[in-house]
Amino acid sequence: MFRTFDSTPQADGFRMPAEFEPHMGCWMLWPERGDTWRLGAKPAQAAFIDVAEAISAFEPVTAGASHGQWENARSALPESVRVVEISSDDAWMRDVGPTVVVDGRGNLRGVDWRFNAWGGLDGGLYFPWDRDSRVAAKVLEIERAGRYRAPLVMEGGSFHVDGQGTLITTRECLLNRNRNPHLDREQIEASLMAYLNVQKVVWLDKGVYMDETDGHVDNLCCFVKPGEVLLTWTEDRGDPQYDISRQALEILSTETDARGRPLVVHKIHQPDPMVVSAAECQGLDASETAKPRRAGDRLAASYVNFYIANGGIVMPLFDDAHDRAAMDLLARLFPDRKVVGVRSREILLGGGNIHCITQQIPMGERRVR
Amino acid sequence: MFRTFDSTPQADGFRMPAEFEPHMGCWMLWPERGDTWRLGAKPAQAAFIDVAEAISAFEPVTAGASHGQWENARSALPESVRVVEISSDDAWMRDVGPTVVVDGRGNLRGVDWRFNAWGGLDGGLYFPWDRDSRVAAKVLEIERAGRYRAPLVMEGGSFHVDGQGTLITTRECLLNRNRNPHLDREQIEASLMAYLNVQKVVWLDKGVYMDETDGHVDNLCCFVKPGEVLLTWTEDRGDPQYDISRQALEILSTETDARGRPLVVHKIHQPDPMVVSAAECQGLDASETAKPRRAGDRLAASYVNFYIANGGIVMPLFDDAHDRAAMDLLARLFPDRKVVGVRSREILLGGGNIHCITQQIPMGERRVR
Repeated sequence: MFRTFDSTPQADGFRMPAEFEPHMGCWMLWPERGDTWRLGAKPAQAAFIDVAEAISAFEPVTAGASHGQWENARSALPESVRVVEISSDDAWMRDVGPTVVVDGRGNLRGVDWRFNAWGGLDGGLYFPWDRDSRVAAKVLEIERAGRYRAPLVMEGGSFHVDGQGTLITTRECLLNRNRNPHLDREQIEASLMAYLNVQKVVWLDKGVYMDETDGHVDNLCCFVKPGEVLLTWTEDRGDPQYDISRQALEILSTETDARGRPLVVHKIHQPDPMVVSAAECQGLDASETAKPRRAGDRLAASYVNFYIANGGIVMPLFDDAHDRAAMDLLARLFPDRKVVGVRSREILLGGGNIHCITQQIPMGERRVR
Repeated sequence: MFRTFDSTPQADGFRMPAEFEPHMGCWMLWPERGDTWRLGAKPAQAAFIDVAEAISAFEPVTAGASHGQWENARSALPESVRVVEISSDDAWMRDVGPTVVVDGRGNLRGVDWRFNAWGGLDGGLYFPWDRDSRVAAKVLEIERAGRYRAPLVMEGGSFHVDGQGTLITTRECLLNRNRNPHLDREQIEASLMAYLNVQKVVWLDKGVYMDETDGHVDNLCCFVKPGEVLLTWTEDRGDPQYDISRQALEILSTETDARGRPLVVHKIHQPDPMVVSAAECQGLDASETAKPRRAGDRLAASYVNFYIANGGIVMPLFDDAHDRAAMDLLARLFPDRKVVGVRSREILLGGGNIHCITQQIPMGERRVR
C-alpha cells in the first residue's frame, strides 16, 4: 500500500492537476528555525496561523510540527487544523512536500523530488537538510498514498502546471549548476514530462529580483486557468525587476501551451520596493550556514505568491499602496473564489510567502470515459 | 474538530468497546531505546515486525517511529503498515496510546491518561517520559478524533473492559501510591466510570509475578467475551505465580459483572518459568534510570498478553512445552478467529508482550435505536 514505485507517473497514467483544480486539503509546516525566523519564530508563527486559519475556511489543513514545538503548535493553531509530528529543517512545505498526481480512477500518488536546500553547498540556504528530505514521504504515508522517487533535484515552488500538459519554470532555477549539473535541458524536460505527465515546458529566464531560491517561478508567474497566466509587474524602468518581468512577458507572449493555445498574460503590479529594517535583523540565532540578513536588503515581495484553495484565494498583503488593486485583480481573475488577504511580511522576511509554505493535495478524480 | 473536551465520555454518551468488538485498525510504536532493547534494538525490531505483519493480515496497522528511525522503520516494516513520525520514550503503545471510546453515532474520541512511566520517580522505569506523554494526543490528531484529558495517572494495560459496563483491574497497579496517591479507591472507581463509561469495577489483587508494570491486568487476565475471562495459571504450588492466580480465581469466581452475571473463568497454563540469560544482559546501553537486567531474573511470561484483531488473535509464543496447548485453547475460545503465534521473547525481555505494544482503534458504530 505505501509503496515506492520504480515506474513514473507518465507510464502509470498519473498527471499533476493544476492548483485551481479541486483539493482534498492543504499541508503546511510549523516554523521554528531560529536563524530563519526572528524572535524565536513567534512573529512568523503568528503569520503562519493566519494563513492556516484562512485556508481552513476553504479546505482541511494539516500542519507538521517537530516534537519540541508540537504542543505549542497544537495549542496555537485553530482546532480545525490537524497538527501532526513531522521533523523538518525549516517550514517550506511547497518545496519539501510531495507533488501529488492523480490517475482519473480515484487514486493519488506523490512525487518525492530530491532536495538540497535550494543549492546544496553551492549557494544553498542551510545545512544539513536531512529532515526536510523526509517530509514528502512522511506526508504521503499519512495520506496513505504511494510514492515516486524522482531523480531530479528540484522544489515544488520551481514550477507551475496548467493541468492540461503545460509547465512553466525558470532557467535560473532548473538549469542552475547547483541543482542538476549532470543533466542538460533536454534531459530535465524529459524528467519533468515523465514525473508530471506534461507535454510542453515553457522556460522563463529569471525569477523575482533578490529571490533567494534561485528564481522560483511561483513568486513570478502562475496559471490562473488553462491558457491564462498572471505575471508580477512594475512600470519603473529603474527597478531591476522591470527587465525580469519584461523579458518574461516577451517569452509568454510568443509561447503557446501544450494544446497550441497562445497564452493570455495578466500583469499584477508588485508592491513598492521594500527592504529589511534594522529591527528585523535582530533576534536571529547566529549561524554560519544561514544567508546573512542585512538592513536595507531588498525583499522579493510579489502578490503572485498566493495559494489557490477550494473556493478561495489566500494572498499576501504588505500594507502597501498596491494591496487594494492586487486584491481587486485577483477577485476579477477568480470570480468563483473568495479572495482573502493575509499580512505576510514575517513570512517574506524568512525568504518566501504564502505559496511557499503550502502544498495542496488534489482530489482523487474519476474521469468519465 | 481536534478539540480537547472538558466533559467526560460518560456525560457525552461515549463508552469504551471491548477489544473483541470490531476495529478500525491498530497502532504500534517502533522500538529503539538502547537501555530497554539490546543490540541497538535490532532483535526487538524483528519481533515487532512479526507482530505488525501478523496483525496487518487482519486490520490496518500504523506504526509511529522517531525521525531518527523513521527511514529504517519504513524500510523494515511491510508495505501494508503505515509508518508515521511520532517521538516516544519507548515503544509501549498500549500504555501511552489513547483509549478510544465510541458513541453509537459513528463518532470516535480518545481518552488521554496521565502517564508517569509506570510509577514516576517512585519505581518508574525511566526518566524523562515527556515524549511518551504526547503520543496519545498525536495519534488522535492523525485519526481526526477529539480528546478527553483524564485526571488519572494510568496506562492502557492496567485495565480490561467487556464493553458491557464491566472493568477488571488490579489493586497493585491502580491503588499503587506511585500512581494516584491523592485519590482513594472510590475516587478512582468514579473516574474510571466517568472516562470509560463502565458501571462495575472488579478489583483483583496482584498482577503476574515479576511484572515490572506494578501488576498490569493485561498480562494476567482478560475478557474473551462478556461474562467470560481467561486467567494465566499454574498448578505448581512452589511457583510464586500460584498464589497470585489462585487468589485472582477466587475473586473472579465470586464476583458478578455489571449486568449481574457470574463470570466463567478459563485457565490458560503459563509457560514454564523462564529467566534472563547472561547473553541477554549484554548489548544494553548504560543507564542510571533503567531497571537493571540480571542473568537469572524471572521473566513475567504469560499467554494472556495477546492482541485481539478483526478475525484474528495474535499471541505470544515462547518455544515452550505449553505453547501448543495455549494456541489450541485460544482457538477454542475464539472459534471465529484465526490464531497466529509470534515468537516474542525479545519483547518480553523489554518488559511486556504483544498486548503491551499494540492499541486498537475501535470502529465507529451506529446503534439502531
